[in-house]
Amino acid sequence: MKTTPVKGTNDYLPFDTALRDSLQNTILGVYRAAGYNRITTPILEDIENLDKSEGGENLNLIFKVMKRGEKLEEALASGDPKVLSDMGLRYDLTLPLCRYYAANRGFLPSPFKVIQTDRVYRAERPQKGRLREFVQCDIDVLGDERKECEIELIATTAKALGKLGFEGFTVKVNDRRLLRAVLEKCGFEAETFDSVCISLDKLDKIGPDGVRAELYEKGCPENASIKLLELFAGQMTLEKAAEFVPECEAAVRLSEIISASIKLSKGKYNVVFDLTLIRGQGYYTGTVFEVSVPGYPGAVAGGGRYDNLVGKFISESVPAVGFSIGFERIFGILKEKNITFAGTRKKLGVIYDGDFTVGHEFAETLRENYDCTLFERPKKFGKLLNNLEKNGFDGYVCVEEPENIRLFAERTENQ
Amino acid sequence: MKTTPVKGTNDYLPFDTALRDSLQNTILGVYRAAGYNRITTPILEDIENLDKSEGGENLNLIFKVMKRGEKLEEALASGDPKVLSDMGLRYDLTLPLCRYYAANRGFLPSPFKVIQTDRVYRAERPQKGRLREFVQCDIDVLGDERKECEIELIATTAKALGKLGFEGFTVKVNDRRLLRAVLEKCGFEAETFDSVCISLDKLDKIGPDGVRAELYEKGCPENASIKLLELFAGQMTLEKAAEFVPECEAAVRLSEIISASIKLSKGKYNVVFDLTLIRGQGYYTGTVFEVSVPGYPGAVAGGGRYDNLVGKFISESVPAVGFSIGFERIFGILKEKNITFAGTRKKLGVIYDGDFTVGHEFAETLRENYDCTLFERPKKFGKLLNNLEKNGFDGYVCVEEPENIRLFAERTENQ
Repeated sequence: MKTTPVKGTNDYLPFDTALRDSLQNTILGVYRAAGYNRITTPILEDIENLDKSEGGENLNLIFKVMKRGEKLEEALASGDPKVLSDMGLRYDLTLPLCRYYAANRGFLPSPFKVIQTDRVYRAERPQKGRLREFVQCDIDVLGDERKECEIELIATTAKALGKLGFEGFTVKVNDRRLLRAVLEKCGFEAETFDSVCISLDKLDKIGPDGVRAELYEKGCPENASIKLLELFAGQMTLEKAAEFVPECEAAVRLSEIISASIKLSKGKYNVVFDLTLIRGQGYYTGTVFEVSVPGYPGAVAGGGRYDNLVGKFISESVPAVGFSIGFERIFGILKEKNITFAGTRKKLGVIYDGDFTVGHEFAETLRENYDCTLFERPKKFGKLLNNLEKNGFDGYVCVEEPENIRLFAERTENQ
Repeated sequence: MKTTPVKGTNDYLPFDTALRDSLQNTILGVYRAAGYNRITTPILEDIENLDKSEGGENLNLIFKVMKRGEKLEEALASGDPKVLSDMGLRYDLTLPLCRYYAANRGFLPSPFKVIQTDRVYRAERPQKGRLREFVQCDIDVLGDERKECEIELIATTAKALGKLGFEGFTVKVNDRRLLRAVLEKCGFEAETFDSVCISLDKLDKIGPDGVRAELYEKGCPENASIKLLELFAGQMTLEKAAEFVPECEAAVRLSEIISASIKLSKGKYNVVFDLTLIRGQGYYTGTVFEVSVPGYPGAVAGGGRYDNLVGKFISESVPAVGFSIGFERIFGILKEKNITFAGTRKKLGVIYDGDFTVGHEFAETLRENYDCTLFERPKKFGKLLNNLEKNGFDGYVCVEEPENIRLFAERTENQ
């Protein structure tokens, strides 16, 4: 049998799990203090819900769960591989949230401010750092179209990142409607916007010539591509974009979001306009944002407004916007910086001689204040103490000398 | 698109999630205080690992994940449905733990005392209360064969249940080796022991005649069945079993475990011998235990010793024993008793007029001590307050009167 975890997934050692738990608790603490409430949804989701969800590239990365029993027999007999699966593992927390809101809205306050910290799955090609099972930490506001949602989400996500020790990071903000207005004016066809966005998203990676070549291959009008890349040459400010498409109202809203966010940042982090910011998911309708940390490529958090996604489940339209921290990026960066979890409770070895129940009962008297692990007194007492110190214990106490808690650092602590 | 969660899974409302989080934190607190450390393993597991794991009935309940891309094409072309899947969702936390220990034992202390609280999956026929996605809270000790492991696991699990508010529950304990010795002496063939155990497990449900009929159908010798059922008539004490098979050393060990556990229980819960206790999993080798709560059928916790499971991954034999709380049973019972989560932090509505950023900055000054949700002052102020009270807020404060925190219960609280 194989001892390694399946490709793209990780085992976490006690040390790592303690750090992960502590980081998640920090994030949860900030989110709860901001008035958001945690919910949980299943990891399994209906396969049709996933397939129809406009998740962009992620739709190609769904882990599909096979039907079982008679239904599997029927599906196999049909010869159509597409019907072999009835469920999939969710690729994000946004689609399940929309389904959840549609199903439970009668029991939820409006607006609904919600936390999700949980696992998602994508069948990524396993490259360095690309996990197939990973945790996202999301906050969302459903049922509220006001720009204040975006401002609060940015401030709250930034606060969480700050509490985790990140400084000087940059929140990039854009509005897809502004980007689309610009593309239209350049002369791209409406039905190619998504495709143009995908190419434009690579501007940093492949340069203007690369983007132009890609757009040419996709059959876009060449003068539209030239106009677009001209506009993107040099500094692309919000003013410049707004001047290019003065009729676009999204520019005004975006400007208000950015200036309020800059005010709330108090200079601890940057909030900037980035017209090239698109975000992969097809379901975003307006504002999009992401956070980048200096020295680390890619985003550590991302999100946006998805006003039409709940409407795919129920006839009414429900505005919605969310911001998601990519927990594995955060964890990876902090691990690289050798950040470890400093527990608030001390770990003691409690050493007993002979009767385990006597040792246990004594340890119970200490467990209100200490994490106590019982050890039977071995012949080589010193070796045990060395092992305890090596394994992160803060000290020890022997049942025969219950008043003497000996700490490795300070030698002795009186109870 | 479907709004209900997939069959056998649940959406949890904020209220329920808060209760679930608080219950899990209570359990985790007890486990950590007892010196156990949390780890996390992937939900996805290699399909061969799962198939070869001796999980008993659970092996028929594995959710299988389909291969992807070229490998799926190849598998489809082969015409063999068994090769369509390369991974499955774990059906328990014990198999992944053994794989984890085998992979990481060089970095782990010995004995390794470990916590896992996480989701598992079983394709159960959806009956009342049978979930397909559910949480288990496990503690295990690996690398230690001493009976003290069992004694501590029982005491620690019982302490967690006590902290959750359970009283007067019963911990049933058995040893499979004793049961097997009894079966052998009755005259059953060694290779039918598992099958006999499965039938005997139904004694409570189908009665002695039902069990005899089942054993007859399975082709067991009739006088063995009669001998077995005679032995099980009336009170089946450990003394009686030990007398029947005086050569069985497991009886002595079991007796010591039970008497120490009774001593540590201090009369708050019962610890009893139950020779009919088997537990479904094929991998248990010695002690098995489970907890039942008066008034609720079935078990709320269960576990046992599985000394051979790590050995399926690596050549060395590693003794292991664990106890698992069925979190969904616990949650279901407490919900039924109308237990709710009483948060430790107060929830305030913070009401601002006009500028959101002013409201946000004021709320930030309170968030060290309160969970604060911002609201723009509406025309119908009274309606907002009613909604706040209905939605579980403890009170509110207006930006213009920052010193006046008004609690719905006590009216006013000075900062």
